Order: sequence, then C-alpha cells, then structure tokens
Amino acid sequence: MTKKEFELTDRLEIIGMDNLPEVKKSDDLTSLFFVALEEKREKLEDGDAIVFTSKIVSKSEGGVVVLSGVKPGSDAERIAKETDKDPRIVQLVLNETKEIVRTEKNIIIVETKHGFVCANAGVDESNVEEGKAVLLPEDAQGSASRLKKEIEVRSGKEISVLISDSFGRAFRDGVTGICIGVSGIPALLDRRGETDRFGKIARITKEAIADEVCAAANLVMGEFAEGIPIVIVRGLKLKRSKGDIKEVLFNREDDLFR
Amino acid sequence: MTKKEFELTDRLEIIGMDNLPEVKKSDDLTSLFFVALEEKREKLEDGDAIVFTSKIVSKSEGGVVVLSGVKPGSDAERIAKETDKDPRIVQLVLNETKEIVRTEKNIIIVETKHGFVCANAGVDESNVEEGKAVLLPEDAQGSASRLKKEIEVRSGKEISVLISDSFGRAFRDGVTGICIGVSGIPALLDRRGETDRFGKIARITKEAIADEVCAAANLVMGEFAEGIPIVIVRGLKLKRSKGDIKEVLFNREDDLFR
Repeated sequence: MTKKEFELTDRLEIIGMDNLPEVKKSDDLTSLFFVALEEKREKLEDGDAIVFTSKIVSKSEGGVVVLSGVKPGSDAERIAKETDKDPRIVQLVLNETKEIVRTEKNIIIVETKHGFVCANAGVDESNVEEGKAVLLPEDAQGSASRLKKEIEVRSGKEISVLISDSFGRAFRDGVTGICIGVSGIPALLDRRGETDRFGKIARITKEAIADEVCAAANLVMGEFAEGIPIVIVRGLKLKRSKGDIKEVLFNREDDLFR
Repeated sequence: MTKKEFELTDRLEIIGMDNLPEVKKSDDLTSLFFVALEEKREKLEDGDAIVFTSKIVSKSEGGVVVLSGVKPGSDAERIAKETDKDPRIVQLVLNETKEIVRTEKNIIIVETKHGFVCANAGVDESNVEEGKAVLLPEDAQGSASRLKKEIEVRSGKEISVLISDSFGRAFRDGVTGICIGVSGIPALLDRRGETDRFGKIARITKEAIADEVCAAANLVMGEFAEGIPIVIVRGLKLKRSKGDIKEVLFNREDDLFR
C-alpha cells in the first residue's frame, strides 16, 4: 500500500454516556464529561473517538435563542409564508445562511455560513424549552479542537473529538448522523493509491470516516429524548491527524448538485 | 410516547468477520458465515444485525461480468467519450439504469433499475479480478430476506440482515456505507409523534437507521483490501419489522433534488 492511514480492526465498541445533566450556557463540557465517565466507571483509552452532539456544544456556548426576541424582516416574512414556517425561525435561518439551495413546504435547504448544506440551517426547536431554538455551534471545528485538547490534557490519552448533527440527504428519505467538526482523525480517509484484494490500485475512493463515526454514534444517541449526548467510539485504528471538517465540504465548482 | 419503535441502548458492539474465503458464484453465504462464526468462536444473539457487503452477495449470485464479453452500443460509446470511461463499463451502467441524473468526467450518476441514486449504477471494478466488474445484486431486498430466514433457521435467533454498499453523497465529498436491502428491522425509524426532553412533539424526524447501521459496519469493512465482508452490529434494541429498503427511497415527486 502506498498510503496507509489506518490499520485493520475487526471490533468496535460504542458507549453512550446516558448520565449527563441538562446542559446550560457556560457549562464546562469537558468537566461534565469526566464526571459522567467516572459515574459510569469508564476510563478513556488511546484512540477513543468522542462524539458530542452539536446541541450540547451549542447550548454550552450560548447558542440558544429566545424566539420572542427575534424580529423577522421582510424576506423572512415572505419565505415564512411560502414555506408555512414561523417567520422568527425563518429569520434565524437566514441569519445563518450563505445561500438558499431549495425551499419547499416546511423546509428551507441552505448552505450555512459554516459551509454545510442542510435543512433550516440546523436551527432546531427540539430538545429545548418551548419558545426557544438552538443554532448550530458558531465554529464547531474550533469547538472540536478545544474539547480534544482539554480532554487530552486531563486524561493523558490520545483521543479524537467529533461534533455531530443529523442532516437529511438528497435522494434518500430520513436523517443520519453526520460530522460538523473533527479533531484528531481525518474527516476523509483518502484511499486513492491503495491496492485491493487483487492488487489493483484504487483511483477514486475517499471514505467519509468522520461522518460514519457520527452515524454510528447516532445509533445510540437517537433523535429524541434518549438523553445520550456524548458517545465514545472505541477501537478505530486511524492515523492521528489534525482533522478538519472542511475536507468533506466541496468547493462550489466541484459540487455536482448545485 | 405515542410511537415507540426502539428501546434505549447505551452500548453497541461491532464485530467484523475477517476470516471469510474469497466468495465465488453459487457459494452458500449462510454456510460460509456460520463456518466463519465458529472459527472466531462467536455466537449469534437475539437482536444481532448482520451486514453483508453487496459485493459478496453479488459474487455469490453470479453478478460478476467479464468485460471482454460486453459489446458497447452507440449510447455507451458516446457517454464513454464524454466521461472518459471504458465504453464496456458504460454499457453495463446503462443496462442497470432507469434514469441518468448527472454525468461528469469519470462519473455517471444514475437512478438504478432498483431505485438507488448512485455513481456508475454501483458497477464496480475493485475487489474483483482484472477484466471483470461486479454489478449490484439483482434484488438486494430479496437477498436480505432470504439470508435472514436462512440464518434464523440455522441459529434459532431473531436477527436482521442488511446488505450494504458505499455511495457518494450530494453536497459532501467521500463515500459512506449505506443500505440497499434490509430485513428484520425498519429502514426508517419514524419518530414523528415522539416527545422530546421537554415534552414537545416531534413533527418531522425520520431516522435512516438501516443506513446508519451500514455506515457503522463500514468502519470495520473499509473500502479496500481489508477483507471484512460481513459485520455483526450487536446491541440495537429496535422493534422487529419486516423491513424494506423502499422506505428510504423517495417517490420521484417528493425528491427535492431531481
């Protein structure tokens, strides 16, 4: 193999932290995580990938907005009518948006200011008090790097941190866990140049490993009410890497679907 | 909760079967799987989800094509020129295609005759001898149902079977594991009607659980050369369901991106 960014692993463990309190602004997520770990009598291991839902990251960083304080502008009012949505939510979506990709009843698909193509710019009214909405973290990539450093300092282990959300997809119904910030492993495993079982060289395949880790974590996080906002994925043998979610974001001109 | 299709689980295990032989036409995958299980001293448990790569399913069902026997027609020759691809591969792609969605250098995105939107209709030259290509299984949904029944009869356990492939996505670079056939669990977990942590009722979210299981499995299968074509995902607590991959396939008129 000309490039080897991983080792063979035949076993992973996915461990959900189901014992975290409701997260509030200015909470120290790293401390909450270590308290929860100790309560569960778990210990971190080298190579652990720790997945945080965007929602608790955003809540701890003050990304919760009180809707009664939002004044929708004329664009928001118009799109709210077209899409049958709350104009205050539409205003929040527009605040987060670089480009509107599609609108449809009850849905606005946009490219967010962070570069993610998703529904409603990730603005979410679930798992927060009535009359409030949660935005995506301002800089999930930065949050991932910070959490990784803090957790490594406190544990003495080499770990990675991923921030997850759940997005819908083109061409397939339903949402899946995806990654919006990653530090410690690559977002994209570039396997071009590797040989297959028959010695042929792969030309194209890049595997979106960070998205797969977040999809796996989402199987225990679930979408609602389960209260598992942090998940450890143990057993990955990936090359250490700075990691950057930008690896999976297309340049506008390389995006076949816009 | 008005609908409850799952129970809380805080721990999953992902176990790769790394000891299977190269699969040939007419091989009995169920028997190969049980031999591999016994060699690894693993036992099936109720609730296990068993993920088979589409490639070994297809190989066992005779889905390997010798390229020298393929005669490209004029459409294939023209598209091959436009996309810089082997005209014989393009002919195979067209044979598998219901509708061409996009073409680009080295890539043809289609809706396959099975209803999947993917690159090159899933026709793949990796992990097969030089001069051959592997098609998607003719009826992966049927193969999943058959394998599930066979494995349940032999093991006496209630399990589910998923057939996985890896597809690229719109808006994000890289491929991830996805499902093309599922039996025993739902493809889509319909969580509309569930309440969140704050008692609010979810209106929209459907989770593409079968795709997430296949993404998780792909973390150990990898894309090349690893030789882990079957993976057990243990610990899911999903409602038993007939399961049908059609649940995630949009009706043409509901697809925002075509």
